[in-house]
Amino acid sequence: MDREIVARMRSPVTLIPQLANHLVGAGGKRMRPLLTVAAARLCGFGAPDDDRHVKLATCVEFIHSATLLHDDVVDVSALRRGKPTANSLWGDKASVLVGDFLFTRAFELMVDVGSLDILGVLSRASSTIAEGEVLQLVTQRDSSTPEATYLEVIKAKTAKLFAAAAEVGAMVAGRNGPERVALESFGMNLGIAFQLVDDALDYAGREAKLGKSVGDDFREGKITLPVILAFLRGGRVDREFWKRTLEKLDQQPEDLERAQSLIERHNALTDTLERARHYGAMARDALGLFGDSPLKDALLEAVDFAIDRAH
Amino acid sequence: MDREIVARMRSPVTLIPQLANHLVGAGGKRMRPLLTVAAARLCGFGAPDDDRHVKLATCVEFIHSATLLHDDVVDVSALRRGKPTANSLWGDKASVLVGDFLFTRAFELMVDVGSLDILGVLSRASSTIAEGEVLQLVTQRDSSTPEATYLEVIKAKTAKLFAAAAEVGAMVAGRNGPERVALESFGMNLGIAFQLVDDALDYAGREAKLGKSVGDDFREGKITLPVILAFLRGGRVDREFWKRTLEKLDQQPEDLERAQSLIERHNALTDTLERARHYGAMARDALGLFGDSPLKDALLEAVDFAIDRAH
Repeated sequence: MDREIVARMRSPVTLIPQLANHLVGAGGKRMRPLLTVAAARLCGFGAPDDDRHVKLATCVEFIHSATLLHDDVVDVSALRRGKPTANSLWGDKASVLVGDFLFTRAFELMVDVGSLDILGVLSRASSTIAEGEVLQLVTQRDSSTPEATYLEVIKAKTAKLFAAAAEVGAMVAGRNGPERVALESFGMNLGIAFQLVDDALDYAGREAKLGKSVGDDFREGKITLPVILAFLRGGRVDREFWKRTLEKLDQQPEDLERAQSLIERHNALTDTLERARHYGAMARDALGLFGDSPLKDALLEAVDFAIDRAH
Repeated sequence: MDREIVARMRSPVTLIPQLANHLVGAGGKRMRPLLTVAAARLCGFGAPDDDRHVKLATCVEFIHSATLLHDDVVDVSALRRGKPTANSLWGDKASVLVGDFLFTRAFELMVDVGSLDILGVLSRASSTIAEGEVLQLVTQRDSSTPEATYLEVIKAKTAKLFAAAAEVGAMVAGRNGPERVALESFGMNLGIAFQLVDDALDYAGREAKLGKSVGDDFREGKITLPVILAFLRGGRVDREFWKRTLEKLDQQPEDLERAQSLIERHNALTDTLERARHYGAMARDALGLFGDSPLKDALLEAVDFAIDRAH
């Protein structure tokens, strides 16, 4: 899969593989494309000369990477996984355009695979991600965002691609019945859990662990579940604090620590992780219809990994 | 076609239709989607309840619009067709993300139409456009760009979509033989001619005519054919001038006028338009295999329009 990913970034325009390789070649967990490969194999896919599942996995990774490139431009991010972002090295313009290239290359790959049904699933997922990004942009800066809206956002911008990644694994293996439904649901719930934990970690003060800097969401004024719960459970003074720091982005050096202590006091972090465990449990149960196998164990481990990162 | 275009921009995230409508709904010439509809009908497509050609036309318009949204961000443009750009009204972030949305919505539409061959053509075209944009980004600021490189760029970023737009018209009508080749070639040559004239007009001093402000390319340091020819034909002093103004972007108020007079002196504008006429002629000839009809006349008129805008 990694070989295919690198091969498909090639272009005579050398800036493209250079920039793409900085992000995609740098590793990352490859959770999304691994879902596709694992789901396909769990469904019995595996003629030795048939690599359609790897093509689809590459496609999923490219959709994800394109989104990251554009996100980092939109969020004016300087670091990702502890390394300088592509936009900070090559500029916003190159990042937007190479993101577009990866997006379009993903669609070429899908067409190569040749299934209209699979194209339908992945193109709808891409469209949902884009819609989710815009939704996030317009709901930003509103501390009273309801949990339901937040859930819509993370389903659209994160979980939908996890869901599609797993679903197309079943589809390429020709399992369009209950296995497909189960894997789609597995991906969706895993994706929600994954994003909830991610959003919790941003306030958890464990900087080193993920190469993710704590407080990014706070500094950018992102309204995530820890904040939503702390806001709902806090009084007038607390709410003024959230409005000043997250809506007006009027922040003092000590504000992050105060945010963390408010979140702690209202059990907002604990409960965010509790929510994540709920979705994790649903993801696990979705695999119930598959018999025991090392592949199933691997997928169950992915759920543990998504949740246990927080400990 | 316009109805379909507006309908497909719908989204519960209201910023999406708002922003998209500002660009797409504002009109524009719709040359690219009209190519699809005209090509399809020229090839005999036309069952009354079959609107696949309109869906494909919408798809072409969305790919084009997404590109414009991203281009205006990359070029930091404030005006398009004499109106404020989407990025100047809603910001870069919204423009990048709504561009992504239109891109992905285009792919959903293609999947709807249900032909893998057509998907192949349009996804390759999209990927080529993205590659062309990056190529343009990296060749910017080099006054000694060869004409061949410039041609590669305009083929990729403009002509390829014209070509694909016309080609898929033939394909949806089931004409995959010589008609498809002819229409693809018609679109490609028309697209090249169109872009050449566009690049000429940027130095032609006829501001009012197109709602396009003269000197945009100059101010942005874009290396287009009028400059390439003037640079090649000029002496040392001229070349210093082009390097200072276009590579270093060190420009004085009177520099645009000097650029225009250098271009005039070296017949660079005349010869750019001469090149455009050459591609226009090839486009016309490509239609030779079709019998006379009002639709063929309309396509021939499109060539005249593309070229005669300059007079």
